[in-house]
Amino acid sequence: MTDLTAASRIAAAIRNVPDFPKPGVQFKDITPVLADAGLFAASIRLLTENFAPGDVDAVVGIDARGFIFSAAAALSLNCGLVPIRKKGKLPWKTIEESYDLEYGSNTIAMHVDALRPGARVLLVDDVLATGGTAAAAVGLLRKAGADIRRVAFVIELDFLKGRGKLAGLPVHSLVRF
Amino acid sequence: MTDLTAASRIAAAIRNVPDFPKPGVQFKDITPVLADAGLFAASIRLLTENFAPGDVDAVVGIDARGFIFSAAAALSLNCGLVPIRKKGKLPWKTIEESYDLEYGSNTIAMHVDALRPGARVLLVDDVLATGGTAAAAVGLLRKAGADIRRVAFVIELDFLKGRGKLAGLPVHSLVRF
Repeated sequence: MTDLTAASRIAAAIRNVPDFPKPGVQFKDITPVLADAGLFAASIRLLTENFAPGDVDAVVGIDARGFIFSAAAALSLNCGLVPIRKKGKLPWKTIEESYDLEYGSNTIAMHVDALRPGARVLLVDDVLATGGTAAAAVGLLRKAGADIRRVAFVIELDFLKGRGKLAGLPVHSLVRF
Repeated sequence: MTDLTAASRIAAAIRNVPDFPKPGVQFKDITPVLADAGLFAASIRLLTENFAPGDVDAVVGIDARGFIFSAAAALSLNCGLVPIRKKGKLPWKTIEESYDLEYGSNTIAMHVDALRPGARVLLVDDVLATGGTAAAAVGLLRKAGADIRRVAFVIELDFLKGRGKLAGLPVHSLVRF
């Protein structure tokens, strides 16, 4: 059962920044959550809730803000961390997945040897918006043969309908706007 | 006293990738350390060694790989995390610091309200190379009036002499090449 008090304290701490990164967009700034030891720890507790050490083999985190929550979640669950980054950032051999943006496209990558087939994973990112990045990350994990036990976000922007791109997966978000 | 056994296990797990990101450069790939729950936890224990919860007010992490180690260190020390990012990535008002690269320059930023004056901080990044980024991060922390208790790296590349740019600061690296 979600700790609603902690989730609402996290929601209250998120700062709305108008016109970032471009005019007309309101950005959800999670740095006040990070700055508060209690809220940061609560966010990790909620992202990993009902999971105990041993329940997943790895936490998978998406560059860059996703690294923050995924790394702390991995430490908390006593498992390894697997980074997903933009193509060209990881040094070793990678598998890749592309997705469309409003203008153009983006490609993300994961090391070929990051996960063994059947590895149980928790995928973590900071925000679920249109779902393009998350769906591509799921695509990478499926190519690797991973068993996706949860896809977790600190923030979900309901009006962008990203959850629709993650059909059939256990999606877990702490705060929904 | 440093746990030499853990440090040497971390050193042994780091993967050398030739010609990345450009020909002639040997890259130190820390993803095998992240993938191993025991080594990842050991790296966080060593980065924060001799610090107990309450000894620092915040861990400061540098985008992007630095976020991984700094976030887990912040959770471990039960304190907040302050991100330093490239200019233009943080949504709120920032202070900035520039430094020279081999060709051109780079500017990093931190939110103006990230730290109160006198805040005791642990600065964390993955690699100390030429020291340009680390010295600029120290410059940001000094502008904010922070009390820098340690500057910690997983890897220090001795031959690039980055430590010379951090004179007078308590520099702590787990593995030196």
